[in-house]
Amino acid sequence: MAIPAPHPAEPGYDAIRDAAERIAAEARRTPLLESPLLNARLGGRLLVKAEPLQRTGSFKFRGAYNRISRLDAAERRGGVVAFSSGNHAQGVAAAAALVGAPAVIVMPSDAPAIKVANTRAYGAEVVSYDRLREDREEIGRRICAERGSILVPPYDDPHVIAGQGTVGLEIAAQAREMGVRLDAVAACASGGGLVAGIALALERESPGTEVHVCEPAGFDDHARSLAAGRRLANAPGASSICDALLATMPGEITFPVNARLLRGGIAVGDDEVLAAIGVAFRDLKLVVEPGGAVALAAALAGRLPVAGRCVAVVCSGGNVDPAIFARALATT
Amino acid sequence: MAIPAPHPAEPGYDAIRDAAERIAAEARRTPLLESPLLNARLGGRLLVKAEPLQRTGSFKFRGAYNRISRLDAAERRGGVVAFSSGNHAQGVAAAAALVGAPAVIVMPSDAPAIKVANTRAYGAEVVSYDRLREDREEIGRRICAERGSILVPPYDDPHVIAGQGTVGLEIAAQAREMGVRLDAVAACASGGGLVAGIALALERESPGTEVHVCEPAGFDDHARSLAAGRRLANAPGASSICDALLATMPGEITFPVNARLLRGGIAVGDDEVLAAIGVAFRDLKLVVEPGGAVALAAALAGRLPVAGRCVAVVCSGGNVDPAIFARALATT
Repeated sequence: MAIPAPHPAEPGYDAIRDAAERIAAEARRTPLLESPLLNARLGGRLLVKAEPLQRTGSFKFRGAYNRISRLDAAERRGGVVAFSSGNHAQGVAAAAALVGAPAVIVMPSDAPAIKVANTRAYGAEVVSYDRLREDREEIGRRICAERGSILVPPYDDPHVIAGQGTVGLEIAAQAREMGVRLDAVAACASGGGLVAGIALALERESPGTEVHVCEPAGFDDHARSLAAGRRLANAPGASSICDALLATMPGEITFPVNARLLRGGIAVGDDEVLAAIGVAFRDLKLVVEPGGAVALAAALAGRLPVAGRCVAVVCSGGNVDPAIFARALATT
Repeated sequence: MAIPAPHPAEPGYDAIRDAAERIAAEARRTPLLESPLLNARLGGRLLVKAEPLQRTGSFKFRGAYNRISRLDAAERRGGVVAFSSGNHAQGVAAAAALVGAPAVIVMPSDAPAIKVANTRAYGAEVVSYDRLREDREEIGRRICAERGSILVPPYDDPHVIAGQGTVGLEIAAQAREMGVRLDAVAACASGGGLVAGIALALERESPGTEVHVCEPAGFDDHARSLAAGRRLANAPGASSICDALLATMPGEITFPVNARLLRGGIAVGDDEVLAAIGVAFRDLKLVVEPGGAVALAAALAGRLPVAGRCVAVVCSGGNVDPAIFARALATT
């Protein structure tokens, strides 16, 4: 497979270290959880990076704050705009509130109620759009033009990718503190900013550790793009309970990183995701949303082998509506 | 109110520091969580000690491991016995497995299924009894006599109390790291070992911080005993969803500690407990069991004031059956 040339805006390792310093006072160093009973069942060691415990309930606060805290005074007055199904929305809304910038979030009309409510609670203005009939990027650009705001992209931005990469720095440091060597790390992808940032961090911090990307079945654009060596879109018409992972194709900046550094992609079905949410409830006492559970699901389903190895998976968020969580409880 | 004389077996501050060193390699330093949105709703700062993330899903591992790791080789061969509705059972079973000692756990026949299953998964033998017709202490003593085992009490033991006191050491240290002064700390009580250990730790580490005990309505024996200055039992016939907090009266060793150091007791109803589990789900992404949620419930219900203050509550465990958790989700 030919590896595409790096995008000129690709952040380096130093940008991730810089992001870690910048977000330290406001973001949480989330724990790396494990369950001895779960390890015994899997015959290996499974470490779970608990990003539901991050500020705003997902890793997205890291990238959003790393970007938004760099705005100068005039830019802050103009405010920020983001389009997001919910977790990036909350990250941007909370980060903007911390620096005193107004925020407008363009959210699909079918976003989970908890994500819409929390985005408003952080003080942001929410603009709804129809996921099937309207173009969220066009709506975002129009608002930016009208108000002089700055768009904060969910993944194709060097500061956003560097901010998400702090998850990788922490996993490497926590594994060292525990005295373990990581055979593999897995994270989910929508546009690929989280897994790209993690891969860039681990390239330096934990060379030799495999990095895998995990996706919902029907939205496995990263897996197929990695296999093809070029960015491929998802076929229209698929559905998934993973509302956070429905981006159409890998990002422009993120894909060359992932093509260079990832071992490959793994797709999981809705039933496997619900079962993983149930395991996180029972064995880890952690609330995980569907999109946040795909890497855990890949490990539990045996497609990311844990037996005889030490594997870290990122549970990326926990903003799940009670009705979906109740469905997952029925699997335990 | 007259304060009863200390029990000769009361552990001192040094015993808690010693416990912290002893359990450090096996127990988890659980995070002190908070939610900016929840803080805004309460008008103060609420910190949540997340003991569901402790090994075995509750704080009980701390005391059990601090006691059981001190057994000599001959004592380990004879094994340990405990009677418990579930969390102490799991703590003892896991600690015994770590030191290679057999464990027999005497559990009520109506204990939550998850607690029974996990206790067996840690390798312990479970002996069931009828909560209304049989005396669990008598059953435990008989097994000890037959097998030469050592009974590990759930609260009336200096090493167990000192182990639970490490929760207080950590809360004080984490508050210092966050740069906050704690106005109050609250924890639940069944026999009172957790709150006594915390109070002993905070007496030295954070003097001036109020310590409160929280209980289910109908099982407020600590609150009434504190008010009376002597140990009073709960009236028979009460019921509560807080399966972990149904002990009949305060402990012999724990009560004089609590009478000297606690500000008082707060009782909460089942509906308030379910609502608190729902808030922990939504705002903290933490799975909390009914008994583990009473201190959080006291804060959310306004009976432990948070407005204008900094208050830490201990969520003591997360071993909850899915059906009960689903009831709590319906409140969010």
